Amino acid sequence: METKKLNIGLVGYGFMGRTHSNAYRSVRNFFDVPYEPVLKAVCARNPERAQAFANTWGYESIESDWRSLVKRADIDLIDIASPNDTHAEIAIAAADAGKMVLCEKPLGRTAAEAKAMVDAVEKAGVPNMVWYNYRRVPAVVLAKQLIDEGRLGRIFHYRAKFLQDWTISQDLPQGGEGLWRLDAGVAGSGVTGDLLAHCIDTALWLNGPIQRVTAMTETFIKERKHTLTGKVQKVGIDDASAFLARFGNGSLATFEATRYARGHKALYTLEINGENASILWDLEDLHRLQYFDHGDEGRLRGWRSIHITDSDHPYMKHWWVPGLQIGYEHTFIHQVADFLQGISEGQNPSPTFRDGLATDYVTDAVLKSARSGEWEGIEPEN
Amino acid sequence: METKKLNIGLVGYGFMGRTHSNAYRSVRNFFDVPYEPVLKAVCARNPERAQAFANTWGYESIESDWRSLVKRADIDLIDIASPNDTHAEIAIAAADAGKMVLCEKPLGRTAAEAKAMVDAVEKAGVPNMVWYNYRRVPAVVLAKQLIDEGRLGRIFHYRAKFLQDWTISQDLPQGGEGLWRLDAGVAGSGVTGDLLAHCIDTALWLNGPIQRVTAMTETFIKERKHTLTGKVQKVGIDDASAFLARFGNGSLATFEATRYARGHKALYTLEINGENASILWDLEDLHRLQYFDHGDEGRLRGWRSIHITDSDHPYMKHWWVPGLQIGYEHTFIHQVADFLQGISEGQNPSPTFRDGLATDYVTDAVLKSARSGEWEGIEPEN
Amino acid sequence: METKKLNIGLVGYGFMGRTHSNAYRSVRNFFDVPYEPVLKAVCARNPERAQAFANTWGYESIESDWRSLVKRADIDLIDIASPNDTHAEIAIAAADAGKMVLCEKPLGRTAAEAKAMVDAVEKAGVPNMVWYNYRRVPAVVLAKQLIDEGRLGRIFHYRAKFLQDWTISQDLPQGGEGLWRLDAGVAGSGVTGDLLAHCIDTALWLNGPIQRVTAMTETFIKERKHTLTGKVQKVGIDDASAFLARFGNGSLATFEATRYARGHKALYTLEINGENASILWDLEDLHRLQYFDHGDEGRLRGWRSIHITDSDHPYMKHWWVPGLQIGYEHTFIHQVADFLQGISEGQNPSPTFRDGLATDYVTDAVLKSARSGEWEGIEPEN
Amino acid sequence: METKKLNIGLVGYGFMGRTHSNAYRSVRNFFDVPYEPVLKAVCARNPERAQAFANTWGYESIESDWRSLVKRADIDLIDIASPNDTHAEIAIAAADAGKMVLCEKPLGRTAAEAKAMVDAVEKAGVPNMVWYNYRRVPAVVLAKQLIDEGRLGRIFHYRAKFLQDWTISQDLPQGGEGLWRLDAGVAGSGVTGDLLAHCIDTALWLNGPIQRVTAMTETFIKERKHTLTGKVQKVGIDDASAFLARFGNGSLATFEATRYARGHKALYTLEINGENASILWDLEDLHRLQYFDHGDEGRLRGWRSIHITDSDHPYMKHWWVPGLQIGYEHTFIHQVADFLQGISEGQNPSPTFRDGLATDYVTDAVLKSARSGEWEGIEPEN
Repeated sequence: METKKLNIGLVGYGFMGRTHSNAYRSVRNFFDVPYEPVLKAVCARNPERAQAFANTWGYESIESDWRSLVKRADIDLIDIASPNDTHAEIAIAAADAGKMVLCEKPLGRTAAEAKAMVDAVEKAGVPNMVWYNYRRVPAVVLAKQLIDEGRLGRIFHYRAKFLQDWTISQDLPQGGEGLWRLDAGVAGSGVTGDLLAHCIDTALWLNGPIQRVTAMTETFIKERKHTLTGKVQKVGIDDASAFLARFGNGSLATFEATRYARGHKALYTLEINGENASILWDLEDLHRLQYFDHGDEGRLRGWRSIHITDSDHPYMKHWWVPGLQIGYEHTFIHQVADFLQGISEGQNPSPTFRDGLATDYVTDAVLKSARSGEWEGIEPEN
Repeated sequence: METKKLNIGLVGYGFMGRTHSNAYRSVRNFFDVPYEPVLKAVCARNPERAQAFANTWGYESIESDWRSLVKRADIDLIDIASPNDTHAEIAIAAADAGKMVLCEKPLGRTAAEAKAMVDAVEKAGVPNMVWYNYRRVPAVVLAKQLIDEGRLGRIFHYRAKFLQDWTISQDLPQGGEGLWRLDAGVAGSGVTGDLLAHCIDTALWLNGPIQRVTAMTETFIKERKHTLTGKVQKVGIDDASAFLARFGNGSLATFEATRYARGHKALYTLEINGENASILWDLEDLHRLQYFDHGDEGRLRGWRSIHITDSDHPYMKHWWVPGLQIGYEHTFIHQVADFLQGISEGQNPSPTFRDGLATDYVTDAVLKSARSGEWEGIEPEN
Repeated sequence: METKKLNIGLVGYGFMGRTHSNAYRSVRNFFDVPYEPVLKAVCARNPERAQAFANTWGYESIESDWRSLVKRADIDLIDIASPNDTHAEIAIAAADAGKMVLCEKPLGRTAAEAKAMVDAVEKAGVPNMVWYNYRRVPAVVLAKQLIDEGRLGRIFHYRAKFLQDWTISQDLPQGGEGLWRLDAGVAGSGVTGDLLAHCIDTALWLNGPIQRVTAMTETFIKERKHTLTGKVQKVGIDDASAFLARFGNGSLATFEATRYARGHKALYTLEINGENASILWDLEDLHRLQYFDHGDEGRLRGWRSIHITDSDHPYMKHWWVPGLQIGYEHTFIHQVADFLQGISEGQNPSPTFRDGLATDYVTDAVLKSARSGEWEGIEPEN
Repeated sequence: METKKLNIGLVGYGFMGRTHSNAYRSVRNFFDVPYEPVLKAVCARNPERAQAFANTWGYESIESDWRSLVKRADIDLIDIASPNDTHAEIAIAAADAGKMVLCEKPLGRTAAEAKAMVDAVEKAGVPNMVWYNYRRVPAVVLAKQLIDEGRLGRIFHYRAKFLQDWTISQDLPQGGEGLWRLDAGVAGSGVTGDLLAHCIDTALWLNGPIQRVTAMTETFIKERKHTLTGKVQKVGIDDASAFLARFGNGSLATFEATRYARGHKALYTLEINGENASILWDLEDLHRLQYFDHGDEGRLRGWRSIHITDSDHPYMKHWWVPGLQIGYEHTFIHQVADFLQGISEGQNPSPTFRDGLATDYVTDAVLKSARSGEWEGIEPEN
């Protein structure tokens, strides 16, 4: 099979810029994909940082203005790994320029922004994807398989939470390098768009559409110094967010995210209780799936701790040998592998921009309910 | 110290009748308490069953009408372990007769019932207690100590759930022997008054009053055969119940209970996240407390799995040696020990009927919110 | 069914005297056994302590010389819960007097002592039993069932350890109240006869006879003050003991016990690896059995954590409801229940004195190998 | 800092060839090392496979005879990832040719082979290293730090096992592609040189030299079809191996490895019990370290489950953010990073060939003891 080159133009050089770059660089060492990603250019406002990043990862060139990047004829795909307030503008321009577009999550700061992005890529007919990487955790994919096979039966409960503790200190400033997630103007929201969005995306994928929600949010630390202005300013983001939900399939759900759960660094857990079986997964031990099968002989029923490292587990035949775990960044490699395979077959693997919009409709409803104190429905797109 | 006898009259012979009887019989083998409980009489409508129970546990006599029991001069304490719809009437009569009154939880089917019970015992000035036994799990008491010492600092989050799976089968009837918990008329509500009430009682004790809640409930199986009528009837109880809450101390909470969580038998978990430390406890491994202390040296911070069997752990010097765990029924023995010690000192240990009422105010608000779809406040008593 | 009384005469009032007394007192509250144990007399050299113990547990009388107890016509069963150096003399006298004899483990300080005890009870034809209580942990009994059903297939490995940490301090004296386990003259040996004996008894029961062993022992703290003499004396016991073994069924084993494993209070774990399945159990979470079944579908294989609280688990229908765990002392209640049921049917449930002797043959071989540095065979009785 | 190129010549293209290649390719994306590894050539007897491997990983050229590779002037470093029977000859030739030499473990099939290899690299004065990669697991490095800081105090116990289950089937042939580990002629031994060698290397590093051992080995399946001859032949390797050991520091140890422990894929666990603290680690959850500190307040002591993903954990500042785990292959990247940094500073990081020899002396003694049935000392080099 002849391999075609796919020229990547990356915007952003932070945490996500690293995970994406690693995925492009490594995918062909482990997956026999029909495209070869070429690290053509990285773009950042600060040219020195862009150059340092290019040196580390092997990008052939740098740009300091994303508009220049989007115009370059030698770029096939624009990958947006810059802060949330830049997503819509870049994505729309890239789509208009006929580029494939990959975008970090959340797609937009609001569903309105995301809707415009969906319209742009669909109008342009370009492949597009949102980096909800937890859909590519092997244990989560196995959960999806079990659900699709009907193993769980009628679903009664969905339960997800994403707990962190990194913003508890009053001394942490808002905004600036690495801290834009605390700046409401840039991020759009706090944990709702950051952590809950992950929980919602996975939930929509595994359990179908959400019908309505009732939510509460809280900002525990009301004022923080803003790095850019140097002043102590009101904090605009939600530090914690929780909601109850009803899914279209009749199941009940609780969702919660916070950056104030002392002792948890990135505890994203999800649990699904079905009539016949239940599953439970936890990001802090992402290589395991907990599974309870009521079909097991009565006295021998128990939660199975499945070590997801066998060759018959999703993606795992591409890695090492049974018992040897993979880590976080592998999810991005899997996503790139699926994307490259998909586009070679004329398909656009999920999560597409349209999938990302579905999540934004839910986060919009969550934030609206937290303000209104009412149950809120989800926009029809979902 | 001379020991006084305390004559017990028990109403009910089910699961709770057994745990209470065991507690009275065993307490003095492990605790040096100033009263000796005497199993004077057990009361049940069916005399044969009452007699069988009396034989097993050593009750000296039986009664088939609780009114007769309450009138007996040789009874000091009435212990109510019969279904929820009998609590108020018996408790009020017992108080009026000057008896001490212990009552299974929930105190009343509604706060109104519970309020009348509180009024009765307070007017009569008789010692009283509700069997919220999880306040006497050594691990939970240790959690309480840590909170009272200020170890956790400002509290951000409270998280509790009580998951069971025993009513998933459509074939299970409602009502009748051992199944009155599915009969709304008898039980008052489903999981809200049964399982959530436990979660709420512990939460009020550990984290202070709740201000308001938003809730949802669901009855997954709409009709079941009723054992007493023999007919398929509409199910009146809630099979699942979840709510968001705000506590008076500013913390946010999620609560959930269900009997449809496949794979969980009695998974009552509670977690509290404070600024400086977090704790987590789980009824299915009740002899452990998980504790995270942010004050530990950074690179060595981790959740400690504390095996609560040392002599410096609450209640444990009365039991065996380090490493050897106790079980479920010990919580009732602890409660009796505390009660007997307390009344000898003229005190009435918690949870009193007034404490039980506080929980009923919250369950009332939960059920009201589930109907109204609104945030509901909690009655001022709490 | 008419119930016969069975008059108990207990020797010793320490930790084990308590667990046995509790078992006699409680057994009929939970098990419908054909004998009613009557706490007739407790015997201890110190009459004040004996009386205090009798008051706590309800013994009708006390004795200060076990010879008097053995002679009493109103005693049916002599239960030996005194230090190891008293076992043989009392047991033999009791058997000669025609009493049933229960004895704490290890049966003798040496196999020679134990052999004389076996001869005595077998000659007298009296029911007899050794308190290897871990054979009555429901999870361990379930393991036994699985093995007997052939679920595991050919056994490759047996792995047991019993780890404690309570003697690490140099300041701990040897001998005296509660510390006779550190006095070689009284105890016979250190962890070999104390902790390893438990591991060996369970292993012989689950996995059949051991053929040969190679062992090492160590005394980490060479001198300790002796409480009785007041002098610093050489320590005679083994603080740690480990051995490799080959079983008659061809499996390989590692065994280890120590009182110097910081962080473990009573971590008795056993694991068996068979061709088709494996099991793993741990005393510090005794209400769980870990089970791996290779027959499960490949991608869904995992260790099942079975919460041993269902009514179809061994002994558990006698206790509470699913999800509610029992503790350590319940194993003694189970043993008494089985004993009473067995003798009513003319059977003598295991572990008999002969079973206890089998373990002593192994501990003798372990200690011999530790001295010789050679592989040592086990006496033919095993 | 100017970066020098370091030209790599790899021998072998199997599982280990992949992990090494990935390490060379990725190291500079995460670590700021002074050398740039260049994938110059891969060597394998089968040129087609060599070419396929070169294509996947980006090797510039292939060789089919390692002698040609060793002679090439454009190669700086020979990396030996071929079966055990090739290690000595290639390593010695490479050293004689003045190349740096990295070699997979075990260094030699016997200590005699390994000794010749040590002599060759030391005579040539070339940098050398053995791929005992578990020394670069962040959790294990943290354990090493704690030991070196004296946190554990006097060490009483070391306990290691490496359990797998992949060779239980009688149908598995010996020898041939991917199965040379079952061929005694190629591998040298079975689990002793394969799995136990890992346990021993880590132990020598963490706990110092071993003085003597007593061992047993077993071959459960006596005959298997040999892939190369097509005949059923006697199996020469040990399927399981266990030994007791005494370390120079006075601690006692148990070691065990097997490929017949149903349910375990790669369960390498190690535990160290010190007077003041204990540590426990497990390869199947390699991103966690269990730590018990007796210095913690008594009632709050417990095993801490430390999630090794914080920036103050070894190597972790180079990876992602707290809570996000790394996997197996990262240990090889760390080893390359340390090697490149070390040689730039004129040092040769451990484990050197001399360290690898120390392990071979122990495995030789283990195999000798298994044959002799005696305790065997370790050669003085250790």
